Amino acid sequence: MRIEVINTGTELLLGNTLNTHGAWFGGELFKLGLRIERQLTVPDGDAIREALSESVERADVVIVTGGLGPTSDDLTREITAEVLGLELIPDEAALRSIEAFFAQRGRPMADSNRKQALNPVGADVLPNGLGTAPGVYIAPRLNGRSQCAVFLLPGPPRELYPMFRDEVLHRLRALCGIEVAPSVRELKFTGIGESDFHQAVDSKLAGIEGLEFGYCARIGELDLRLIGSDEVIEAARKLVLETFAPYLISDDGSSLEQSVVRLLAEQSKILTTAESCTGGLISKRLTDVPGSSAVFTHGFVTYANQAKVEILGVSQTTIEAHGAVSEEVAAEMAGAALDKAHADIAVAVTGIAGPDGGTQDKPVGTAWVGLAVKGLPVTAFQLFHPRNRHDFRLSVSQAALEAVRRALTGS
Amino acid sequence: MRIEVINTGTELLLGNTLNTHGAWFGGELFKLGLRIERQLTVPDGDAIREALSESVERADVVIVTGGLGPTSDDLTREITAEVLGLELIPDEAALRSIEAFFAQRGRPMADSNRKQALNPVGADVLPNGLGTAPGVYIAPRLNGRSQCAVFLLPGPPRELYPMFRDEVLHRLRALCGIEVAPSVRELKFTGIGESDFHQAVDSKLAGIEGLEFGYCARIGELDLRLIGSDEVIEAARKLVLETFAPYLISDDGSSLEQSVVRLLAEQSKILTTAESCTGGLISKRLTDVPGSSAVFTHGFVTYANQAKVEILGVSQTTIEAHGAVSEEVAAEMAGAALDKAHADIAVAVTGIAGPDGGTQDKPVGTAWVGLAVKGLPVTAFQLFHPRNRHDFRLSVSQAALEAVRRALTGS
Repeated sequence: MRIEVINTGTELLLGNTLNTHGAWFGGELFKLGLRIERQLTVPDGDAIREALSESVERADVVIVTGGLGPTSDDLTREITAEVLGLELIPDEAALRSIEAFFAQRGRPMADSNRKQALNPVGADVLPNGLGTAPGVYIAPRLNGRSQCAVFLLPGPPRELYPMFRDEVLHRLRALCGIEVAPSVRELKFTGIGESDFHQAVDSKLAGIEGLEFGYCARIGELDLRLIGSDEVIEAARKLVLETFAPYLISDDGSSLEQSVVRLLAEQSKILTTAESCTGGLISKRLTDVPGSSAVFTHGFVTYANQAKVEILGVSQTTIEAHGAVSEEVAAEMAGAALDKAHADIAVAVTGIAGPDGGTQDKPVGTAWVGLAVKGLPVTAFQLFHPRNRHDFRLSVSQAALEAVRRALTGS
Repeated sequence: MRIEVINTGTELLLGNTLNTHGAWFGGELFKLGLRIERQLTVPDGDAIREALSESVERADVVIVTGGLGPTSDDLTREITAEVLGLELIPDEAALRSIEAFFAQRGRPMADSNRKQALNPVGADVLPNGLGTAPGVYIAPRLNGRSQCAVFLLPGPPRELYPMFRDEVLHRLRALCGIEVAPSVRELKFTGIGESDFHQAVDSKLAGIEGLEFGYCARIGELDLRLIGSDEVIEAARKLVLETFAPYLISDDGSSLEQSVVRLLAEQSKILTTAESCTGGLISKRLTDVPGSSAVFTHGFVTYANQAKVEILGVSQTTIEAHGAVSEEVAAEMAGAALDKAHADIAVAVTGIAGPDGGTQDKPVGTAWVGLAVKGLPVTAFQLFHPRNRHDFRLSVSQAALEAVRRALTGS
């Protein structure tokens, strides 16, 4: 089945609104074992006609979003009916539900909203509980032009998502003859080079029948997605982990911070952070995770030397002797944070994010990570990520969280 | 000039990677007065051939991203050369620069990287300082199929953005005959309702000849983009600020955190933060700004009550009497942070991010922001943003930074 998605909306092409529909639809369809062959974004108006005319000739299912509103720019209904050779007629039930939408909110219904109740003859009206725009489903047998099924859906995600779940999903499964959706499993890795990983995994997995897999590289992270039957996925997972188990963040799609929070919770341990160059990014990431309050209680953002001395008790002498970005200071920060927060593990980072502040000895991109585990000697390691400020900080936070994960798993 | 953008990458259609290229290109081209007529996303492999074949027949300029890497999936160079009837030959300079990229990082170059130095005969190699994939520019006269100019650019934003700025922009201007690009000015506002703002600004700016403007709504922020001659932009800016000056974050596109850091630097003041529900997000945002170390020295992430008491010295009695999410605790946190950090301003937040932890009196989405300014009584105000965890935390950080901005500007 060839599926194409057309997102309409001039605002999506002017740089101020991010089109999140492509990724969202991709994810939803992927769960059914379906893939989008093409996603198009076009401005409002006549561009929809051109795009739709082409897509219905090529695809088995076309999903169009946007342009179902009441304004003069909203032409998706009209143009679709024209392209497919269908007459638009007012749907009484749809009109009543739009009237009810306004009545419930105590607002008058504008005359322009009446056109939202127009529906191609014979097509299904898809109810919209959260907005005025009903969706439309045009079955292949109604299409006067090709054998393609067409869905017209509202653009705003909070209207689109429930309509997709309640009205589109079962029609799609029926159209595509899907009885059992395949399984999907995402493995996340860190600390390996992208090309090395791809080469090795490509050759490991090449022979497995019925397996699909794909990669995604992020800063400090490589994701591998496995699709197939449960047995095939398990076989692939084992093969990959034979070599790459030490680099595995998670095999259930959890982020590094989610994995760290889960490991801490399982071991009833408290983590604390002492951050210089990352300025709170590590604690922000940890507290992104719901339930992190059970394992994270204190974080120290000691951006200035004075803060390292006063708040953590790092020795002024150490800073003067070795500089704030040094093994010694990273280690003292971690040790001090562990004590101050009565924690089980402390991770500390200090580095030069740039663009200024680099020296010949310690260029921009240099960082030290200190790790203190209760009852063990404090350790520290150096990083060098000469990247832009944003990517540098993200890399350092990733390395710090990975160090915690390794301490917790003993790997 | 008809411009089309093709983004290649299976990962963009599988739901794990958001395609930010559409919006980004839209914004960059809009600054030149150009618009994208169509943006397509297609998977790696043969879909690129079909999409490119169609686009080069229809458009004057086609920009392709992705598929320039070393793996077997990366076929953009090969397929483009085939579609346009051009021979691919190794470019010696490109090969040397890829070799240098690996040498600099002390890593061996894989054999697969050699194909990245292949270039269509006569086409310009676009250097990539930040990755191994050089870009390609194929002028209309080289194109064996149509009069369309074709750019092949790397997918990763950190490689794409500088290449676009350094290598694509001037070629695009020449292609499109743009001598003087119009000016663009972005005004950022906060604390106003979106519909009220749009209605008022629409009617204010409707009469100005030669002005284009557009909106973008973000969490806790409304952006207004003005495009036109300098005089027209200035007239529009004045009209909008007649009503909305008190809500202005910046009129030069600066983010709220950039504005706050700049104001602090101008006034030689030090800010400190005491964060509970935001868990470091506020200090992370402040330290995203280069040079923030001059105005931000200490941050306290006191996620647990115990941390509020031990690290800041909030009174246990206050917490017991009013709860951690209360006016009193927010105020004590701010006052204590001000003292501990010897700062001029302190902002503190405490709230219920959810999904758990809400009560009937204090549902998820409740937060208090405390503000302490040296020499003035501490103040606090309540927020209620019943949103998902991510949006709630972003909203609270925005309100906290806005409170600091208002304290600094006396507005």
